[in-house]
Amino acid sequence: MNNVICCKCVRCGREYPAAPDITTCECGGILDVVYDYEYIKTKLSRSALADDPDPTMWRYRALLPIEEDTVPQGLRVGGSPLYKADSLARELGVKALYIKDDGINPTSSLKDRASAMAVTKAVEAGYHTIACSSTGNAASSLAGNAAKAGLSTYIFVPDRAPKGKIAQLMMFGANLTAVRGSYEETFELSKKAIDKYGWYNRNAAINPYLSEGKKTVAHEIIEQLGFRAPDYVAASVGDGCTIAGVYKGLYDMYMVGLTDRIPRLISVQAAGCCPINTAVVTGEPWQPQEENTYADSIAVGVPRNADKAIKAIRDSGGICVNVTDDEIREAQRYLAKNAGVFGEPAGVTATAGLLKLSREGKLDPDAAIVSIVTGNGLKDIESAIKNCGAPVSCGNDLAEFESKFGLA
Amino acid sequence: MNNVICCKCVRCGREYPAAPDITTCECGGILDVVYDYEYIKTKLSRSALADDPDPTMWRYRALLPIEEDTVPQGLRVGGSPLYKADSLARELGVKALYIKDDGINPTSSLKDRASAMAVTKAVEAGYHTIACSSTGNAASSLAGNAAKAGLSTYIFVPDRAPKGKIAQLMMFGANLTAVRGSYEETFELSKKAIDKYGWYNRNAAINPYLSEGKKTVAHEIIEQLGFRAPDYVAASVGDGCTIAGVYKGLYDMYMVGLTDRIPRLISVQAAGCCPINTAVVTGEPWQPQEENTYADSIAVGVPRNADKAIKAIRDSGGICVNVTDDEIREAQRYLAKNAGVFGEPAGVTATAGLLKLSREGKLDPDAAIVSIVTGNGLKDIESAIKNCGAPVSCGNDLAEFESKFGLA
Repeated sequence: MNNVICCKCVRCGREYPAAPDITTCECGGILDVVYDYEYIKTKLSRSALADDPDPTMWRYRALLPIEEDTVPQGLRVGGSPLYKADSLARELGVKALYIKDDGINPTSSLKDRASAMAVTKAVEAGYHTIACSSTGNAASSLAGNAAKAGLSTYIFVPDRAPKGKIAQLMMFGANLTAVRGSYEETFELSKKAIDKYGWYNRNAAINPYLSEGKKTVAHEIIEQLGFRAPDYVAASVGDGCTIAGVYKGLYDMYMVGLTDRIPRLISVQAAGCCPINTAVVTGEPWQPQEENTYADSIAVGVPRNADKAIKAIRDSGGICVNVTDDEIREAQRYLAKNAGVFGEPAGVTATAGLLKLSREGKLDPDAAIVSIVTGNGLKDIESAIKNCGAPVSCGNDLAEFESKFGLA
Repeated sequence: MNNVICCKCVRCGREYPAAPDITTCECGGILDVVYDYEYIKTKLSRSALADDPDPTMWRYRALLPIEEDTVPQGLRVGGSPLYKADSLARELGVKALYIKDDGINPTSSLKDRASAMAVTKAVEAGYHTIACSSTGNAASSLAGNAAKAGLSTYIFVPDRAPKGKIAQLMMFGANLTAVRGSYEETFELSKKAIDKYGWYNRNAAINPYLSEGKKTVAHEIIEQLGFRAPDYVAASVGDGCTIAGVYKGLYDMYMVGLTDRIPRLISVQAAGCCPINTAVVTGEPWQPQEENTYADSIAVGVPRNADKAIKAIRDSGGICVNVTDDEIREAQRYLAKNAGVFGEPAGVTATAGLLKLSREGKLDPDAAIVSIVTGNGLKDIESAIKNCGAPVSCGNDLAEFESKFGLA
């Protein structure tokens, strides 16, 4: 890989060659892929992007850690819409608000970006089986992308995972284990099995390439805004991988000169499970927390990518905000009704954070903000049904219809 | 509209000016939009398409019935992936098989193409409220696209509609009525209300512009195949609007010289509800049927667009095949596991038809076939869960895991 220098430990700074199946540092720290941005500048430019008909995440392959002759594997990931949401901007009292709807990816979440990268690296490294633990979306995206790539999968989810995600996994033919326990216990079992059987490891943070896939959401945001960086990018935070990836993508675009600054991150966690935000705000090392939120995708009491996430939030001059489950439910309804974007609970949490910051008078009225929706609302229908209420029941009778809607 | 000549009744041939809120002919027949293909040839070419960065359905606006100065409304629809599915081609014993995954649209079904057109025409005509009846997907797509466009909606669904679709509708803020009765009764109530209140009518077939939106799926297929038409295009059939739209799109591309032939259609209906296929095969007029299939999106006993659909299948030299619910369930599992595409029951029905035709020795081994997936499997999780079974339950215990998967 001419564009990659090495993988470097974010804790001790030790450097490793970027092998396709590298995991963590000997010190236990997680690794970050280091790029040769001067080399990449010779390959990537606004005009090169303008001439590239590829609408997927692989249009940014100059910034991605794959070999020059590697054929990307998996489904058609990325190229998600960035909607200008004027009514939401007015509600928030800011100059401009954009919704990045990553729920339209093939398995309906942003995690497809990481999983497409994972199956590509697994095939590059000659593996036939790939495994992970997940709160749900990473798993279903892995299963779908692996099915397309012809890899078999072992997948571990906490048994509280929503039925929609379970059904996706089973349909995609995963060898699926629903672990009776927390996400932490789920992760532990996956680690024991992966260590013993030598499967390709798609566990977030453990595998340094995953956030390199996720970062393409930020590449797209910058390009879709005509290479003018917004003032803020808001993201929901669980394991920490997504916001770390978002920062890396923003940093990439700045380092290769495709934009002139790095936006500030807005890190939004559930009030019932916010170890990363707590660490940023207090300046103390992060501590495990209970997983008290219905937003299952960010209910991560022991975040695996806390180091990278905390550094990203700090380096960007970021803002932390925690929201209650009720505030998440409100954001879900608001976003669907006013922007036509139906996100899952964790998917709308970034927007819930913006609504809260606005009410507290903490948003700059001159700001342009991007809020990332990380997953489709269809992933968790049971929660949605509880949130939105039941339809009006009516016979084939106009008078009954009119009376129930107060018409005529 | 310089590209449109008129709207013409498919039953009596009477012609009407193409007003944005025109519905059916005085004789009760449905209308077809007639284009000036010689004019369109001056606007649309392979090189014009190659230079157009718009990835949405509106890249084909030269072939769409909107005014020159109309700004398209709604969500970002179209540009769905066309996957080459080699293992499925081998299973079917054909030269090439492609899956067109329209379940990745913003509200997760092909119906977004019709609804984006509907809200665009409603805004063009100055309406503020839009209404429809639907088995579910047309409704949720209308609600989402209308929310984005700032229109209010009255929507009528049969009360058997899956919960996922109901939740989408409620979230998008629709005035939603769940009608205690069949789709036919649902349609009747919507008609009475629309007639009385003068809302913009998004009922399929009644509104001639809807299949003009849907036809863009066929435009995309032809362009994605490098303008080489496949031998067959398979689609599931309920109301008849989708297959009629598919034919119109294929016909368009042939008439403007962007491809050199029109593929044969493969019309796949549920064995428990197949009035259109029955009419094509017997040569008799279509007759209402019971709605005996779990594939709710195509459980249409009284198809509103039968005339256009039957003509499309016949004109293309098409093939009809009916599949049982078990055959649909098998196709759902097969497609997810082997192609990474998880479709709803009606969404995988076209593929079920291909599997059946293959077993019956009725597929040409030299054929290139496109199978359209019309909706995402997350739309109907309850059916999916019944179909795919439950995951393995396990504690955080490697020995228990190994014993349950027969490892080590």
